[in-house]
Amino acid sequence: MRSVIPDYLTEALGDVVSDTSGEPAGYIPELAAADPERLGAAFATVQGEVYGAGDIDTEFTIQSISKPFAYALALADRGFDPVLAKVGVEPSGEAFNQISLEGDTGRPLNPMINAGAITTHTLVGSDDLKPAERVERVIDGLSAFAGRPLRTDEAVCVSEMEHAHRNLAIAHMLRGHDILTEDPRTVVDGYTRQCSVRVTARDLAMMAATLANRGVNPLSGERVVPEPVVRQVLSVMFTCGMYDAAGDWATQVGIPAKSGVAGGLIGALPGQIGIATFSPRLDRHGNSVRGVSLFERFSSDMGLHLMGTPAAARAVVRSHHVVGGGGPDALRVLELQGGIGFAGAERIVREVVDSAPEEVRVAVDLTWVYSIDDVARRMVLEVARRLTLDGHEVYLVDPESLLPDPDPGDGGRVTVVDTVTEALPGPHAAPGDRNRPREYGA
Amino acid sequence: MRSVIPDYLTEALGDVVSDTSGEPAGYIPELAAADPERLGAAFATVQGEVYGAGDIDTEFTIQSISKPFAYALALADRGFDPVLAKVGVEPSGEAFNQISLEGDTGRPLNPMINAGAITTHTLVGSDDLKPAERVERVIDGLSAFAGRPLRTDEAVCVSEMEHAHRNLAIAHMLRGHDILTEDPRTVVDGYTRQCSVRVTARDLAMMAATLANRGVNPLSGERVVPEPVVRQVLSVMFTCGMYDAAGDWATQVGIPAKSGVAGGLIGALPGQIGIATFSPRLDRHGNSVRGVSLFERFSSDMGLHLMGTPAAARAVVRSHHVVGGGGPDALRVLELQGGIGFAGAERIVREVVDSAPEEVRVAVDLTWVYSIDDVARRMVLEVARRLTLDGHEVYLVDPESLLPDPDPGDGGRVTVVDTVTEALPGPHAAPGDRNRPREYGA
Amino acid sequence: MRSVIPDYLTEALGDVVSDTSGEPAGYIPELAAADPERLGAAFATVQGEVYGAGDIDTEFTIQSISKPFAYALALADRGFDPVLAKVGVEPSGEAFNQISLEGDTGRPLNPMINAGAITTHTLVGSDDLKPAERVERVIDGLSAFAGRPLRTDEAVCVSEMEHAHRNLAIAHMLRGHDILTEDPRTVVDGYTRQCSVRVTARDLAMMAATLANRGVNPLSGERVVPEPVVRQVLSVMFTCGMYDAAGDWATQVGIPAKSGVAGGLIGALPGQIGIATFSPRLDRHGNSVRGVSLFERFSSDMGLHLMGTPAAARAVVRSHHVVGGGGPDALRVLELQGGIGFAGAERIVREVVDSAPEEVRVAVDLTWVYSIDDVARRMVLEVARRLTLDGHEVYLVDPESLLPDPDPGDGGRVTVVDTVTEALPGPHAAPGDRNRPREYGA
Amino acid sequence: MRSVIPDYLTEALGDVVSDTSGEPAGYIPELAAADPERLGAAFATVQGEVYGAGDIDTEFTIQSISKPFAYALALADRGFDPVLAKVGVEPSGEAFNQISLEGDTGRPLNPMINAGAITTHTLVGSDDLKPAERVERVIDGLSAFAGRPLRTDEAVCVSEMEHAHRNLAIAHMLRGHDILTEDPRTVVDGYTRQCSVRVTARDLAMMAATLANRGVNPLSGERVVPEPVVRQVLSVMFTCGMYDAAGDWATQVGIPAKSGVAGGLIGALPGQIGIATFSPRLDRHGNSVRGVSLFERFSSDMGLHLMGTPAAARAVVRSHHVVGGGGPDALRVLELQGGIGFAGAERIVREVVDSAPEEVRVAVDLTWVYSIDDVARRMVLEVARRLTLDGHEVYLVDPESLLPDPDPGDGGRVTVVDTVTEALPGPHAAPGDRNRPREYGA
Repeated sequence: MRSVIPDYLTEALGDVVSDTSGEPAGYIPELAAADPERLGAAFATVQGEVYGAGDIDTEFTIQSISKPFAYALALADRGFDPVLAKVGVEPSGEAFNQISLEGDTGRPLNPMINAGAITTHTLVGSDDLKPAERVERVIDGLSAFAGRPLRTDEAVCVSEMEHAHRNLAIAHMLRGHDILTEDPRTVVDGYTRQCSVRVTARDLAMMAATLANRGVNPLSGERVVPEPVVRQVLSVMFTCGMYDAAGDWATQVGIPAKSGVAGGLIGALPGQIGIATFSPRLDRHGNSVRGVSLFERFSSDMGLHLMGTPAAARAVVRSHHVVGGGGPDALRVLELQGGIGFAGAERIVREVVDSAPEEVRVAVDLTWVYSIDDVARRMVLEVARRLTLDGHEVYLVDPESLLPDPDPGDGGRVTVVDTVTEALPGPHAAPGDRNRPREYGA
Repeated sequence: MRSVIPDYLTEALGDVVSDTSGEPAGYIPELAAADPERLGAAFATVQGEVYGAGDIDTEFTIQSISKPFAYALALADRGFDPVLAKVGVEPSGEAFNQISLEGDTGRPLNPMINAGAITTHTLVGSDDLKPAERVERVIDGLSAFAGRPLRTDEAVCVSEMEHAHRNLAIAHMLRGHDILTEDPRTVVDGYTRQCSVRVTARDLAMMAATLANRGVNPLSGERVVPEPVVRQVLSVMFTCGMYDAAGDWATQVGIPAKSGVAGGLIGALPGQIGIATFSPRLDRHGNSVRGVSLFERFSSDMGLHLMGTPAAARAVVRSHHVVGGGGPDALRVLELQGGIGFAGAERIVREVVDSAPEEVRVAVDLTWVYSIDDVARRMVLEVARRLTLDGHEVYLVDPESLLPDPDPGDGGRVTVVDTVTEALPGPHAAPGDRNRPREYGA
Repeated sequence: MRSVIPDYLTEALGDVVSDTSGEPAGYIPELAAADPERLGAAFATVQGEVYGAGDIDTEFTIQSISKPFAYALALADRGFDPVLAKVGVEPSGEAFNQISLEGDTGRPLNPMINAGAITTHTLVGSDDLKPAERVERVIDGLSAFAGRPLRTDEAVCVSEMEHAHRNLAIAHMLRGHDILTEDPRTVVDGYTRQCSVRVTARDLAMMAATLANRGVNPLSGERVVPEPVVRQVLSVMFTCGMYDAAGDWATQVGIPAKSGVAGGLIGALPGQIGIATFSPRLDRHGNSVRGVSLFERFSSDMGLHLMGTPAAARAVVRSHHVVGGGGPDALRVLELQGGIGFAGAERIVREVVDSAPEEVRVAVDLTWVYSIDDVARRMVLEVARRLTLDGHEVYLVDPESLLPDPDPGDGGRVTVVDTVTEALPGPHAAPGDRNRPREYGA
Repeated sequence: MRSVIPDYLTEALGDVVSDTSGEPAGYIPELAAADPERLGAAFATVQGEVYGAGDIDTEFTIQSISKPFAYALALADRGFDPVLAKVGVEPSGEAFNQISLEGDTGRPLNPMINAGAITTHTLVGSDDLKPAERVERVIDGLSAFAGRPLRTDEAVCVSEMEHAHRNLAIAHMLRGHDILTEDPRTVVDGYTRQCSVRVTARDLAMMAATLANRGVNPLSGERVVPEPVVRQVLSVMFTCGMYDAAGDWATQVGIPAKSGVAGGLIGALPGQIGIATFSPRLDRHGNSVRGVSLFERFSSDMGLHLMGTPAAARAVVRSHHVVGGGGPDALRVLELQGGIGFAGAERIVREVVDSAPEEVRVAVDLTWVYSIDDVARRMVLEVARRLTLDGHEVYLVDPESLLPDPDPGDGGRVTVVDTVTEALPGPHAAPGDRNRPREYGA
């Protein structure tokens, strides 16, 4: 059997291939000469599986799609404060080539416009790097996101520099505001190299998947940037990634995204997939015409809109009953299921509070639980602590050790067991038998 | 046992109560006279449970927090196109009182700035409503979001109208551009009534929870607005809800939100909760000082940032094995678990493709599945269809009818059963026994 | 013989009549219905002579041409400081309908844009006038400039008010900034009445001539506004009168000017003439197409550009000689001619200093002098004073009393005589003979 | 006797010396190190006389005061169209360092802001000049305005280039718009050299006097630029010369002017004088604090405001009478006086038309006339032509040949004589006697 996904992608490409509106970027011959009919789309999952259709192995220059990745590298290399001191995070509502500096400070409004991206380039790597070393760090970083060594397109690079008047203007302006402290031409040269890195749609999908996968490249397993950096980068992509069409994109597509003037377009869904498309014809905002259509379709077909409410889940409390009769040996069992976040944890807390258990023994059964996040873990443990203080014995049925470090602290006490049976009175486990039941807390 | 959540909220309020920076809005005496020490916070879950601490039952005027809800009502009452024709969705990067009209058309940039909100007010209800009827529709709509009848504060309303010069200016400007087609003063009067609706933090949390709950009020069960409207509203709140601090908010808090000049602040997490805080002192952006601090804390403590990657889920494929020996009766079973979205479905597809099953019978077991969204459902059914075409008999073990309308279509065929056993050869169910196994497709 | 000037005007009109580009203002039916072929031009001299050709007696509404005159009335009625506190004088470089308020204060940038003109309207008359009285004062003032009673066009007035959304928007904005302190609608109503005053090209030429004539109506002899007000008004007309075409106008035409949307256009040359044209078709700046052409022609043909250097004058020193021999009775005579301003006076001072006269008697002969301005008068008297202190007897030959109050002050002494002969030794005039020679100073 | 003018200047300096507000420009050490107490003022008349007080021979860098002169050179060297195609003439209402480019074309708004001045620099000289040759041409041109060889301050030049980030930004922006077509750094280097030319207040006064004197250096007699260029330059100085204080300056001072960041300030009164002041402390607009005060005083004391109405002149018609009795020999004599421009000529035309002369002979007597400009000349000749056609014999009494080329054309005929007597019947002049009377026309 063939996978359904490439078929879906092929069908989607077929729907947009007839749209020949727009023009490839024409400001340098190398871009103007791009084959406008090229068309490809790729999905990369957070497990590293890549699906594609069309021209997903054609190389083109990354251009502005390098911006969120370089921003991620800068945040990772320097920390948040030094980067935020030089580049803001506010949407400018302006086109990509607007200067958009804050009036007083000259700080670029965000890292997705050129002024912000040029500044961001200088913040990659430690601050004692020489310009050429910094370019190397940027390319290495982009390669780590992609999971293969990338290289620049020298012809494009040279040609871009010959037409870099606006970026040079911006860089000199930033230099005049001391946002840049180096020679503006050198900075623009480095930034141009960053933009000239050659990628394929497959690479871009994997780079986006690395963002979707908390900053860890799904294939190589390398942590490229820390998780808080990813959150920052995706937020900025969501609000500023599509320039003056950011609001249209946020409402209609709802995926953190970034486009490049060579025809690339990426999107990253946290915890799910990275998406990339490639088609050189651009609309008036500078975004790939067919790429935008494809993303609109993907979002709609696949329910990827970030503001879409997830499917109503089954109740997190699978069952709530008492075993072992009504006597002193009775065990109240709260059988949970599914993925538990704050909302699920709230439901559990409520169940416990509302039931006001009279049984001494209370078991929280995680056997059917799929995942539990940190806030839910803390809430469940706090419930356990309070039950302890109220005189209960609390058991956590956690056969797969889903809940790490189950110490409720401060007077709380929890016994972790593998099955509900173990929570019933009587000897259950032989010594050394996987060390269970294990006790945590006071 | 007391619930842990109010305790958490009380602790959070305690942490911000000492911050007395900022000033209540002073442009009308009624707001200036607000008790600046008032402080409250409330959570409302999508199941309708409300938790609160502090002044959550003190009434104050809703002000700009009415904007997203009126926008939702307009989209619901008129449809997307007529509303988008008059009000854009682009972040303005400007303060709340900026006019921010598109140069050519005079279309307000988004519905969160006053120009957009005044225009939006006129788009609530059918277009033959008289102004007073429209105000009634707005208040009824806000009440439906809150789940109780709300009413306006007449004193604030009168006082606001006396200081409504800027809004009147905006309305006349919009009238000059034919964005408004009615008497500007009447429109501003209606809009002012909308902003003068009295609410409590408890109300606001429930209103936000209605957005979080796909547009259905968790308590009343009333569908207030359709789901696509909710998606649109949350997107606009995320990019434009906090005015010129939108970028800071999106990166640091990461929750679709809206603030009001009387000190209210709401946030809505799709599928999870609505949050509201109340504290009258405002920062220079016009947002509640303590409210912003509380949201930063909530987002961080509870992992609510929308761009935060959800906790890594257990593998969606719980087990994959063959029962019934290697003979012709063998049944290949794909036991799934958890919540299944696109990413999970992709994993399933891959599992099937990679295993290239030789067994005639293939069962997809949903017994341990928590939820399955639409794209996943379609992908699973497509897998079933292709397996059918490849000569397989496909069983769907779905004891709780999690997967609606399981017809794979176009040559596909699925038999839905309650247990894996039923998928094995031999008679299983008596006639009339819940009609199982049921067959779908060709 | 017929005067050459009407013939010139007729010829000029003939040259532009074929230009039918542009459109009459179309925002209200009354203006849209204007006969687009109407064409007239009038000159009014500072002596009150009016020359005209074409439709110079057709009435139309004054519109924005009222702005400089209302500004003059406000400056005259309230003084400079209160007016400058509310309306600036900086060119905005923006179109007529831009709001152009100063960021912090909301002060309109200048009185020629609508925001400034609406504010200016409220500053006419004393500040205790009721709105209707103020309108009366404005119309009376405009009438005084024109030299005949003007009245408003009620139909235009009503229609303008129905389309006054933008002006109402501006007025509410100004009210919000406390630049206006009255009801915005009442103010806009009054301003609309001001703009609806009916005038002819003949009227406008006379109104401009009143500005050219230091604020005195050449026909009625009434001083309408003081001279410093005229200087202020002409300066603002020069830099801001033609909206966003102000620089083109200043360089190409070089005459302080103002246009109105009904097709009128005026220019005022200090000390020379007022010019008005009328032709309803407007260019994209809102200025009369043919009117602009006519002014370009007038400026070029007649050398009216304010920055054009006046024709090189004959030397101001007509002759410099000694009469009465070389003895003690010798009289040094400085025979002046022409109009004497600072430059001429400088020449006189230099002549005296360079010649270092040894004669006791020195006569400054003004017989051939045409005019002498205040700075020249003061310089000549200072020369006389210094000559006195050096031991000379100074005579001023001033048969027509051109030089008022000829007291050189502080040790200076001057004897005013009618002829040079009188300055020679010996008795010349009988007592009581027109009181000459008259002595001034110590 | 000492001249009164230096005393006046000394007194004026004494009035402002105590004002130590403001700061010298501090962006380069060379300017920051300027002695802030330096103070000087100079007047240069159109005859070349220079008056001064204080530090009028201290050299400092010309800075932005070079802008109007370079603009004049560009207009002279290239013609108006090529220059206007690249640099506009509209006031920007913005500060000196604003970029102020037209949105679509990137054309700088005017030549007084840096973007316009940098562009203007490249338009000096023929378009085949090498950059170094062009700098030479600029310096030669500035020297011609000053009447002495000027040279650059190399230390300032080097230091400026090190801080030229903003100008480099502007130049790159202009290069990106193809307003500049050369290497931006080379252009900024050349422009910086232009700004680094060393001048004294004496030099600047003479440069301004060259503008006041129709483009001819009063001392050297060299025509530096044509007269229409001067008109253009003075217009632009009037509307744009003082940046965002242009309106204040135009109303309060009323003299075309330009300031420089090293403390210089110039003004030029057409036909009268050039004025320069020097005092390094600058106000927030970048204009010399004391310089502005001095100009306000000069304008007020000396009546130099361009919008000030010149002193009312005596009637241009000195007398109007008939000589030679009432018979056929009677001669109607129109005795004129003073300077005659359009307004005077109108008066003459009116006199002739109103008197409807019956005498055959009509004499226009220019003996007492001081000057007559071109439009007046043409009007007087047209009157003569019409009188001829009406059957009159027309005599022009013009002993000093004030009226050149007195042919009235097209049927007109004029006899030029030296005295009124010659216009009476009978033989007056012997053959060869200076060829008088001379006859012109048909």
